[in-house]
Amino acid sequence: MTQALNSESIATLRQLGAATVYEAQGAKGALDNGMKPIDPTVRLAGPALTVDCRPADNLMLHYAVQKARPGDVLVVDAKGFMEAGPWGDVLTIQAMKLGIAGLVINGCVRDANLIIELGFPVFCRGLSIKGTGKNQPGKVDVPITIGDVLIHPGDILVGDRDGLVVVPQDEIDSAIASSLAREDKEAKQRKAIEEGAFTADLLGLADTLRRFGLS
Amino acid sequence: MTQALNSESIATLRQLGAATVYEAQGAKGALDNGMKPIDPTVRLAGPALTVDCRPADNLMLHYAVQKARPGDVLVVDAKGFMEAGPWGDVLTIQAMKLGIAGLVINGCVRDANLIIELGFPVFCRGLSIKGTGKNQPGKVDVPITIGDVLIHPGDILVGDRDGLVVVPQDEIDSAIASSLAREDKEAKQRKAIEEGAFTADLLGLADTLRRFGLS
Amino acid sequence: MTQALNSESIATLRQLGAATVYEAQGAKGALDNGMKPIDPTVRLAGPALTVDCRPADNLMLHYAVQKARPGDVLVVDAKGFMEAGPWGDVLTIQAMKLGIAGLVINGCVRDANLIIELGFPVFCRGLSIKGTGKNQPGKVDVPITIGDVLIHPGDILVGDRDGLVVVPQDEIDSAIASSLAREDKEAKQRKAIEEGAFTADLLGLADTLRRFGLS
Amino acid sequence: MTQALNSESIATLRQLGAATVYEAQGAKGALDNGMKPIDPTVRLAGPALTVDCRPADNLMLHYAVQKARPGDVLVVDAKGFMEAGPWGDVLTIQAMKLGIAGLVINGCVRDANLIIELGFPVFCRGLSIKGTGKNQPGKVDVPITIGDVLIHPGDILVGDRDGLVVVPQDEIDSAIASSLAREDKEAKQRKAIEEGAFTADLLGLADTLRRFGLS
Amino acid sequence: MTQALNSESIATLRQLGAATVYEAQGAKGALDNGMKPIDPTVRLAGPALTVDCRPADNLMLHYAVQKARPGDVLVVDAKGFMEAGPWGDVLTIQAMKLGIAGLVINGCVRDANLIIELGFPVFCRGLSIKGTGKNQPGKVDVPITIGDVLIHPGDILVGDRDGLVVVPQDEIDSAIASSLAREDKEAKQRKAIEEGAFTADLLGLADTLRRFGLS
Amino acid sequence: MTQALNSESIATLRQLGAATVYEAQGAKGALDNGMKPIDPTVRLAGPALTVDCRPADNLMLHYAVQKARPGDVLVVDAKGFMEAGPWGDVLTIQAMKLGIAGLVINGCVRDANLIIELGFPVFCRGLSIKGTGKNQPGKVDVPITIGDVLIHPGDILVGDRDGLVVVPQDEIDSAIASSLAREDKEAKQRKAIEEGAFTADLLGLADTLRRFGLS
Repeated sequence: MTQALNSESIATLRQLGAATVYEAQGAKGALDNGMKPIDPTVRLAGPALTVDCRPADNLMLHYAVQKARPGDVLVVDAKGFMEAGPWGDVLTIQAMKLGIAGLVINGCVRDANLIIELGFPVFCRGLSIKGTGKNQPGKVDVPITIGDVLIHPGDILVGDRDGLVVVPQDEIDSAIASSLAREDKEAKQRKAIEEGAFTADLLGLADTLRRFGLS
Repeated sequence: MTQALNSESIATLRQLGAATVYEAQGAKGALDNGMKPIDPTVRLAGPALTVDCRPADNLMLHYAVQKARPGDVLVVDAKGFMEAGPWGDVLTIQAMKLGIAGLVINGCVRDANLIIELGFPVFCRGLSIKGTGKNQPGKVDVPITIGDVLIHPGDILVGDRDGLVVVPQDEIDSAIASSLAREDKEAKQRKAIEEGAFTADLLGLADTLRRFGLS
Repeated sequence: MTQALNSESIATLRQLGAATVYEAQGAKGALDNGMKPIDPTVRLAGPALTVDCRPADNLMLHYAVQKARPGDVLVVDAKGFMEAGPWGDVLTIQAMKLGIAGLVINGCVRDANLIIELGFPVFCRGLSIKGTGKNQPGKVDVPITIGDVLIHPGDILVGDRDGLVVVPQDEIDSAIASSLAREDKEAKQRKAIEEGAFTADLLGLADTLRRFGLS
Repeated sequence: MTQALNSESIATLRQLGAATVYEAQGAKGALDNGMKPIDPTVRLAGPALTVDCRPADNLMLHYAVQKARPGDVLVVDAKGFMEAGPWGDVLTIQAMKLGIAGLVINGCVRDANLIIELGFPVFCRGLSIKGTGKNQPGKVDVPITIGDVLIHPGDILVGDRDGLVVVPQDEIDSAIASSLAREDKEAKQRKAIEEGAFTADLLGLADTLRRFGLS
Repeated sequence: MTQALNSESIATLRQLGAATVYEAQGAKGALDNGMKPIDPTVRLAGPALTVDCRPADNLMLHYAVQKARPGDVLVVDAKGFMEAGPWGDVLTIQAMKLGIAGLVINGCVRDANLIIELGFPVFCRGLSIKGTGKNQPGKVDVPITIGDVLIHPGDILVGDRDGLVVVPQDEIDSAIASSLAREDKEAKQRKAIEEGAFTADLLGLADTLRRFGLS
Repeated sequence: MTQALNSESIATLRQLGAATVYEAQGAKGALDNGMKPIDPTVRLAGPALTVDCRPADNLMLHYAVQKARPGDVLVVDAKGFMEAGPWGDVLTIQAMKLGIAGLVINGCVRDANLIIELGFPVFCRGLSIKGTGKNQPGKVDVPITIGDVLIHPGDILVGDRDGLVVVPQDEIDSAIASSLAREDKEAKQRKAIEEGAFTADLLGLADTLRRFGLS
């Protein structure tokens, strides 16, 4: 996890945004469209501290925060259960105190007003005030799967209003390089469009369109 | 419905919020996560005037507003049907004129822009412009069930961005007392966290974690 | 498509809003409640340039923008597939350059932050950063169906926070007239309500209520 | 729970079926359409032994079977979680050994092949092989809510291919009487239909149809 | 509706089945995958008597059966509402007495056991015992839309385990001709496959595969 | 993929069934509950030939069958799209001719009647007659993810009415050994239950129950 995991790389990925990084790294690593920020203006980037827990039980979240390093993103598979909010104000304050960069949870949270006010980035499936137990075991720092994406501990999560993408930790440099190249290319496309070009020409789609009898 | 149903109690519950009251009254009474405010910044509290009606028909809503007392919350089971909006601008103006405190509807509404502009609290499952009939019978002031929660006439609805909770009318005082005690406890936990404590210790989870081989 | 399709009619429809036009034209033409603006403050009106394409492929969108006239609304049936975003920043810039009035897509989009910042009206089912191919044929300027509503090329789409309604192109004048009449009637109802009237009386529901034993 | 709770009443309710009993007792008590028998040919009736448990944990089921009396139906609120099967072959064998009449669970089950082969009636939301913990507390013999229906311990569950209905335990006799009367009435209607009558006439709908201009 | 609407054409379409007719008539007219036969072994074909009604109200069904001619298929848009069963045993008996060929309903039904036993073909979204009113107006013999497909009165519905397809009434002959041609072609393909051919070659996909670097 | 991948191992896994193997291999590898056999009586086991394709396009399926070895199970990620059936009768006949053991597809299929009649095991999310293109690229023999489970080429799929589980190819022997041990243990439990034991005692749950005040 050493490669490039400096604060500058993280900041660059956060600024690039999920859609650009996804496309630039070869159209892979996107979580499903149901995972959304509770505050759409928020941006997130950081290495995953993964948590595999049971639905409606937050014992492992209290355990996981202790294992986090500053800058980590808690990435929690709570099994997509919608009728419980295992994360709320107390854990948010705990997490911010410890320098945790944000939360990505396959499930719901509560105390959204305070979380948004404090500016802590949270991506989840919805809000639920329903309570959780503190009785169930789980695992920390193991591979988990959310939204058809396998996430290894240390992989970088990048998120914004559009959604979330996972960058494998040994591909950070190439992901950044490709993303910057893509941004550059898109800037040129935008300029060309402003000057009157059509995307079908810029993207070389004429052949394909012709094959279908469209010009 | 006499006990404590004064404006001060209602204001206190509204300020405490759904998640705190839910937890404080013993983790019960939470509506499901699909019931959301159309304006996430809104807060609601008040006794339920319940309405049991059919999907896509708002005859009973026009009847119910006449039965409401100032401060009442209309709590309507429209059977969760998403493709009709039985509540809109005219009923909103009627309700505000009569001092109705807000609407909770197991279904959709329309005219959201105006409702938000007027500041009338509405919790529902979504927005739909599709019309309704005015032909179907229903019941007012009877127990109804929304989101797996039984709601009696006079029960207090408390809602905010997180969702909604129902407080039985004869438990208002104890719900407030427990909520304030909980807020007090959480304030102490927050202070302890700021001073370096961990939630696992504050909540006494060490034994459970040890039983699962986690320390 | 000649009748009344001047900029004034379009502006009037946009200002009237989806719910009013839907009701005024006889409670027809409403798209389903899952079709929402990504920026809830946006308003849209314009004639449809229809696109029938396959899920997760945006070849036809690059083709369709070339066929659009200023003021057109792209209305795209991407088959309701949620796990791809066939529309993003480059197409938005292309569309705005060409004077396209907005996008309605039975599917998802990406680059929502930029789209909102640029003020381009987009109605869709959600956000997804997942990529699309550019390999699949489709059709432009054919009748399509979204949300149980048949849309012909040239029909007018009217949308706002509440949702979307389709006005057949040869009914624009009557839709506007009915909508204005309805607004007028509702203004009178509002005034009557402010003066103490009840909606049940204003809408003549007394007979129906009496038939069900309600007074 | 004494009234009429003899095996003959139970057998009569089972034979009458869910739709008839629901309608006969005043169109109330129907569980939602997502609760289905895993074997559509099965029929169920019996008093509820209610269980309130957490999703993905079956500790309380092992506890509850010990509290059951022969003829009881286990009615379990597992919170509608789809990705776990808290009930399988061992519990089925345990239940049948103890004379338990069947299972109704707001969640999933597994080992469906064996359950069907053994003829044990199970109503649920689906099948899942995913495992459960045995760590979480719950409650037995308390009111629970499934599918918007409040179920008290001792209420009678009646189920078949169509779905499930709950008969309050002090309304068993009247439910049976009304159901038999309804069956009798429907038999007459069927006979009349065979002889050429129309349902609109048999049900006295002419007035309503005329009011809408239909004859 | 005169063209070819003889019993032989109908029988041929029923035997051809939904998937074949859909593909043969140009990949159009398929209802969505949520519309299923309650008895998967059933087959249906016949001209539509369309009904547009409100959710949870079956007044119009009692009206529509009177308008049906022998062989008609009742095609009902009940707005996709899942928590009511507007069709049951009495209407089934009425329909069979009148020679109605089957029911397609955008909603649920009840009394499935009897319907299956009687062999009456019913396609719907699910089963629900919940009751309906008989108070709401509607329309018969008007165009309706189910599953994104516009259905005109007199269009032919063809259904089996796979789903449903709509054949425009003036395209029956061509649909049958294309379907038979398709069956013939597929029979040859099957024979070729049995003799060792690959579908990629039979369907001429080599060029497309090669373009993507696959051989 | 050499270890134990003989026909006897495969037959043993098929006979053990999904639920037993899932539990025995440590409660991992279960696909989500939406993946079901179209014929509930069918059983499946075999090594995965994985296919990553786009929704509503079956070009890659025609390619993949050519790469299959006898006994392989085609495991296809069609992105969960419900409104297309990329697999039907011709591909089924092709697959059976080539000795392919079955199909697992994250999507829908058509021609279910014929597939069931031929006895070809198919697990999917539903049925759809809607057509597909043959224009989109994809990948064969790469890791794919379905239902939150990562599947490598050569992993063994085991499926029955309950659902599907994936056994990593280098864990086949241990999975079989654990499953047989589990079956043995369960046989003893069943016998003990028949002789009067309770599952709570057999599973050693007394301590946990006591901790929650239950005996």
